[in-house]
Amino acid sequence: MAESPGLSIFAIEGIGEVTPDTDLAHCLADVLGPDAGDRALQAGDVLVVTQKIVSKAEGRLVALDHDDEAAKVALIEAESVRVLRRRGSLLITETTHGFVCANAGIDLSNVQDGVAALLPLDPDRSARRLRADLRRALGVEVAVVISDTFGRTWREGVTDVAIGTAGLTPVLDLRGTPDAMGRTMLATQICVADELAGAADLVMGKATGAPAAIVRGCPEGWLGAGSVADSIVRRPEDDLFR
Amino acid sequence: MAESPGLSIFAIEGIGEVTPDTDLAHCLADVLGPDAGDRALQAGDVLVVTQKIVSKAEGRLVALDHDDEAAKVALIEAESVRVLRRRGSLLITETTHGFVCANAGIDLSNVQDGVAALLPLDPDRSARRLRADLRRALGVEVAVVISDTFGRTWREGVTDVAIGTAGLTPVLDLRGTPDAMGRTMLATQICVADELAGAADLVMGKATGAPAAIVRGCPEGWLGAGSVADSIVRRPEDDLFR
Repeated sequence: MAESPGLSIFAIEGIGEVTPDTDLAHCLADVLGPDAGDRALQAGDVLVVTQKIVSKAEGRLVALDHDDEAAKVALIEAESVRVLRRRGSLLITETTHGFVCANAGIDLSNVQDGVAALLPLDPDRSARRLRADLRRALGVEVAVVISDTFGRTWREGVTDVAIGTAGLTPVLDLRGTPDAMGRTMLATQICVADELAGAADLVMGKATGAPAAIVRGCPEGWLGAGSVADSIVRRPEDDLFR
Repeated sequence: MAESPGLSIFAIEGIGEVTPDTDLAHCLADVLGPDAGDRALQAGDVLVVTQKIVSKAEGRLVALDHDDEAAKVALIEAESVRVLRRRGSLLITETTHGFVCANAGIDLSNVQDGVAALLPLDPDRSARRLRADLRRALGVEVAVVISDTFGRTWREGVTDVAIGTAGLTPVLDLRGTPDAMGRTMLATQICVADELAGAADLVMGKATGAPAAIVRGCPEGWLGAGSVADSIVRRPEDDLFR
């Protein structure tokens, strides 16, 4: 029996500090070119990049006194279309993108004091742009996932999920596929984009400073079209918890 | 700069059909022994096993006419302590374990007609037993994650999460760790158990029939004690959505 090759996942090191002056694709191409040997970017790789460096490179930074709770709440509300829950200074809101997450995804860690990083305006577009720029710079066709760290209902701990994708089918639809017993499976739509983001987080960690990773070995069938906005963001009218 | 080695993830093939007569550890030891070459089980590996084969091996099977909606609902309610939402025949309940998921985790795919697979009674205990049995059979100390497929609030698609663990710290607590800017990070407790379960699902897929996978290359610091029940299941009183 032929063994399936499996996946390999490794962090991209050497990216350095990202600022609004950073050309992110250029910076990634520098460390992922042919000189990187077997860690050079290859066709079919899934490149996972954290929201933080995308937000920084896109200049999505605003002044915010980290100790000013009222200013923080005002900023969260400005980035949101709906507040679902409020407990002290923790707000669970629906962002302008349709993500439901804590504090509208506004990030105070790994940014300078007095500054907050907002989510990219359109993370799917950010992913598409990065993918096109890397194709131009390195001549390889990859998938791009922009990841962020979200909490979950009912479960402790956070995991990384996809907030933007390009070149990837974010949700694999296996409805109508026979299961191993030959019967048709129902309700099996696997969010590979989120599983890829979480897998990449395992090698990035939160404190290592590696803000990107490569997942290598994905089946060709996962590469394709689609966006987080169209495939993953659940419409409020389909939601049982909003 | 030393490169971090990264992770490799591969499916375990050749397990065959699991029934209540199957000794799961024996069956896994058969395909993961020294003959398996570089796919043999190694110390420090994380072995991810789907709930389905654990439930089957533990005989957690009950008679259920798959077309009898009333019987299905009664079974779901019997496995639950609380119903959170109800839409047609979809129930979101809190199981006796404290998991909040669709239909109490009762599984009708990949089981025989007329049969339903219930969740293991105590998935952490199942993981501990499997880990101990593999240590005896193969002489290696591994971590075990039992995974299941759950939906999420606010996001389309399902992902695999951990319902039981052994030999692993399910949630890494980085509170108090300095971030890359040297400031203390708040609220960063990473649920590596769920990220490992999701990563393993990427190589198992739902229809390939591979019900287990190995994640190799995890930092030693992740191996340790802890359980899903104690570390991941959020207590109702800490929950904003129950």
